[in-house]
Amino acid sequence: MHPLVEAFRNYRQQMNERILSRNNKVINRLFNLDTNVYQEGHLPVLTKEYIGLAASLVLRCDDCVKYHLMRCRELGAGTEEVFEVFSVASIVGGTIVVPHLRRAVEFWDALQEA
Amino acid sequence: MHPLVEAFRNYRQQMNERILSRNNKVINRLFNLDTNVYQEGHLPVLTKEYIGLAASLVLRCDDCVKYHLMRCRELGAGTEEVFEVFSVASIVGGTIVVPHLRRAVEFWDALQEA
Amino acid sequence: MHPLVEAFRNYRQQMNERILSRNNKVINRLFNLDTNVYQEGHLPVLTKEYIGLAASLVLRCDDCVKYHLMRCRELGAGTEEVFEVFSVASIVGGTIVVPHLRRAVEFWDALQEA
Amino acid sequence: MHPLVEAFRNYRQQMNERILSRNNKVINRLFNLDTNVYQEGHLPVLTKEYIGLAASLVLRCDDCVKYHLMRCRELGAGTEEVFEVFSVASIVGGTIVVPHLRRAVEFWDALQEA
Amino acid sequence: MHPLVEAFRNYRQQMNERILSRNNKVINRLFNLDTNVYQEGHLPVLTKEYIGLAASLVLRCDDCVKYHLMRCRELGAGTEEVFEVFSVASIVGGTIVVPHLRRAVEFWDALQEA
Amino acid sequence: MHPLVEAFRNYRQQMNERILSRNNKVINRLFNLDTNVYQEGHLPVLTKEYIGLAASLVLRCDDCVKYHLMRCRELGAGTEEVFEVFSVASIVGGTIVVPHLRRAVEFWDALQEA
Repeated sequence: MHPLVEAFRNYRQQMNERILSRNNKVINRLFNLDTNVYQEGHLPVLTKEYIGLAASLVLRCDDCVKYHLMRCRELGAGTEEVFEVFSVASIVGGTIVVPHLRRAVEFWDALQEA
Repeated sequence: MHPLVEAFRNYRQQMNERILSRNNKVINRLFNLDTNVYQEGHLPVLTKEYIGLAASLVLRCDDCVKYHLMRCRELGAGTEEVFEVFSVASIVGGTIVVPHLRRAVEFWDALQEA
Repeated sequence: MHPLVEAFRNYRQQMNERILSRNNKVINRLFNLDTNVYQEGHLPVLTKEYIGLAASLVLRCDDCVKYHLMRCRELGAGTEEVFEVFSVASIVGGTIVVPHLRRAVEFWDALQEA
Repeated sequence: MHPLVEAFRNYRQQMNERILSRNNKVINRLFNLDTNVYQEGHLPVLTKEYIGLAASLVLRCDDCVKYHLMRCRELGAGTEEVFEVFSVASIVGGTIVVPHLRRAVEFWDALQEA
Repeated sequence: MHPLVEAFRNYRQQMNERILSRNNKVINRLFNLDTNVYQEGHLPVLTKEYIGLAASLVLRCDDCVKYHLMRCRELGAGTEEVFEVFSVASIVGGTIVVPHLRRAVEFWDALQEA
Repeated sequence: MHPLVEAFRNYRQQMNERILSRNNKVINRLFNLDTNVYQEGHLPVLTKEYIGLAASLVLRCDDCVKYHLMRCRELGAGTEEVFEVFSVASIVGGTIVVPHLRRAVEFWDALQEA
């Protein structure tokens, strides 16, 4: 696994466990909803991940982008499709999104080696 | 056509024409890109509209939400699918999205009568 | 009840019912969490409402601000306290918050007549 | 004066007076700083207004945009210059800025009749 | 002092001094207001810090979060109280807040060792 | 060249090339517009850079701030002028901008050694 990917996964998992261990009922239920909302429903899982990816990009959250890129990759998304999601997010969000796009592309490349 | 929908369409069209008539090259080309990015590509048009809808909701832009709802309706999206897009956007964006969700649902209902 | 307050309450209640009636599980559970998170806990209810009010102001969500002002009023908050919340939010969020502050003060005044 | 401009000026002035009358020291001093920061300094006043206008547009604050458009007009800015500010803000902020651009152009047109 | 805390404090102090040394009157007065607004008033200092913490979290500013966590700790806030502030901010701001919550929890843990 | 500046320039250039090499038509044209919009027009280039700098600061995008600081420096902007842009952005955007201001000042200092 590429070091960028590994570092992201490990820190995310470790801190999520730390947060959940505090047993704040509201936070733990929000984490739960976060899992449920991306489940297969009337929309396919991958469509939901594209939606989550674009939402994360326009809100400029690098870690959220990384997570959804990981999921897109696991679900078999291709680079062309992912770049189309990037293109919609870049037009909606403007050039302020571009620095996050640079890090997204770097992470997407790293995932291909994972 | 429902008055909510008609008012939105008319104002949007009238002001877009006013903006484009100024011939600011950069703005006009951005409008052009905004049309191109939602065209059929590696992703289907409706998937791109869902992405645009979710991005608009998390950025809390009522008019952008309305536009993408109009497009989703034209492309045959069902209420269940649209509510799944709403659900992803609400979890990503939090309860700050809810007032925009209220107006989105009101507009979606209005579109059914259009 | 002041017309500003009445219009806000009615629209909010009507559209919330419309949203919940769709039975989207994720959205309905998020609404549920939104109620739970402001319950008495280790922090008093009013402190949580002040927090919700400030968060709404810096995120510049007029309807969220109105809702928390209603709750602050019901819980007996005074104008001095509310203006201190406004002052923190204005310093954190900057003058971009000021137009929302104008509408917040107008609504707070309306609540005194309610 | 065009009704759009008049309504904006009156509400703004009335509510600013209401806010200042509460004598919250921090808020009143922030209002004071807001006046000072746009004064002539190392940069000309109009350059600062262009900066304030672009910042307001990318943050998507219609009332802030209106205020800076009023000031730009008073300082003799031309439509070409103002549209160049719009173009920078639209590229930085993306199409999410466009609905605010529509209202900005409408207000700018109204100011020409004022 | 935990290295995370020390690095944050040192960089913050050093750069604040650098900024203030430029004697830009507006910036220096804003820094001054930033101190004043968190002083004891009609609301207790700790309530204001909770408000500042939540505002920082929903605006997703890691450094602002760290600063308010330091202040909460100095003022004797407990982990349960701080997690309730986190929970309100997470519901208001959505899962986009979660990566910042991870860093907030890591920093809060570091502060316990400080 | 100062290491901060060099690291920024290299990563930015490398990833921009990577993005452009994918030949996503929309993204590549947005990059193109991003160059065009800062060209000499009715407003001088430096005024446009100040506008881009302020927009980047209030949107709290460190990399965008760095880029515009580099351009301001190349175009001969002085520290007094740049701090006036900082002051407008800080008042508009509030103290949430301050951590980005710290990094901006650090980078501006580094550019003087470049």
